[in-house]
Amino acid sequence: MDETLVKAMVEDIKLREERSAMPVPVGISNRHVHLTKEDFKTLFGADCDDTQLKPVKQPGQYACNELFDLEGPKGSIKGVRMIGPYRKYSQVEVSAADARRLGVEPPIRDSGKLENTPGIKLVGPKGTVTLTRGLIMSKRHIHFQTREAEAFKVKDGQEVRVLCGRGTEREAIYERVLCRVLDSFSLELHLDVEEANAAGMKNGDPAFIV
Amino acid sequence: MDETLVKAMVEDIKLREERSAMPVPVGISNRHVHLTKEDFKTLFGADCDDTQLKPVKQPGQYACNELFDLEGPKGSIKGVRMIGPYRKYSQVEVSAADARRLGVEPPIRDSGKLENTPGIKLVGPKGTVTLTRGLIMSKRHIHFQTREAEAFKVKDGQEVRVLCGRGTEREAIYERVLCRVLDSFSLELHLDVEEANAAGMKNGDPAFIV
Repeated sequence: MDETLVKAMVEDIKLREERSAMPVPVGISNRHVHLTKEDFKTLFGADCDDTQLKPVKQPGQYACNELFDLEGPKGSIKGVRMIGPYRKYSQVEVSAADARRLGVEPPIRDSGKLENTPGIKLVGPKGTVTLTRGLIMSKRHIHFQTREAEAFKVKDGQEVRVLCGRGTEREAIYERVLCRVLDSFSLELHLDVEEANAAGMKNGDPAFIV
Repeated sequence: MDETLVKAMVEDIKLREERSAMPVPVGISNRHVHLTKEDFKTLFGADCDDTQLKPVKQPGQYACNELFDLEGPKGSIKGVRMIGPYRKYSQVEVSAADARRLGVEPPIRDSGKLENTPGIKLVGPKGTVTLTRGLIMSKRHIHFQTREAEAFKVKDGQEVRVLCGRGTEREAIYERVLCRVLDSFSLELHLDVEEANAAGMKNGDPAFIV
């Protein structure tokens, strides 16, 4: 047999074994919105700033107290939250079920990749914002702090397959899960509610890169 | 090398190739209920029988016009349909999201396996039925007509892995999908709405046993 090939196969098996011992906790994302400061103030008033309801796992980010509505051509969804702090772009992340309810057809996109995405109307207590783009279904992804990515031997932008619900009735493998690496991130697999439910996952449950 | 092992491996590869050329169409199940004749008449009146809205793919089965509500400890779901005809047992099939909304914790079960399942209250225009058991989340399954099962070389009760959303952003492999074989069945992978959305599947899209 080809020695180089055998060596590569052994390395691959070793890598799989290493990763299978390193669970990635799941964080389940309900529909949410990121807003520019300007859009926030249009919805809640020029003298208003966002206030924190509770932190989320990604350092420095938090769910806000302020609620607003999404209005689509076929229906609306009330009581949607911003994940703060403000961003340089406004972005609305919904599930497939939400999209059907609103009557919109967002593409599946990595956060911030908003070229050729549809818009949506946001209705707050003090005003309305009609985004011309920014409506997406989030592509499944894992956040890695830089050192965590080194331990997993993954690079920013790489896609991996992830085993969810291991050993349960709803065990599933999600393909093409995007790896996102940044010093300010913390290890977490982000799934939307439907993806989590389909694999029988609750917040904090372990997933495995396979 | 061991000749028997090599032969088994070749057979396995051949079987996988055969199956990969035979797509299984997906049928997406929204929440629905099967009812005994007695329970139906309690909900809709003794002089009433079910009427067909539209047939579903499984021969002889149909969605009914008659609507009723599910009432759980935390919330209710309005406008639920029976899939007819009447059965020997009443069974309520909901998604994980539905279960949360109702405030109930049904297990994942094969249809008809109702031992130790919770009940739920059904409210119709003429009366109320409080089931003491029968509330489940349906285990993912494939219906095979007997000859279709022979072509796929699967047996009733066997579990298989199924590739969904092949080539899409939401490609996924669902493990432990139950094979159900009956002369009166027609080839169809049954997923609930969340499972279908998580894999980016629409009604009739192809899945593959892998």
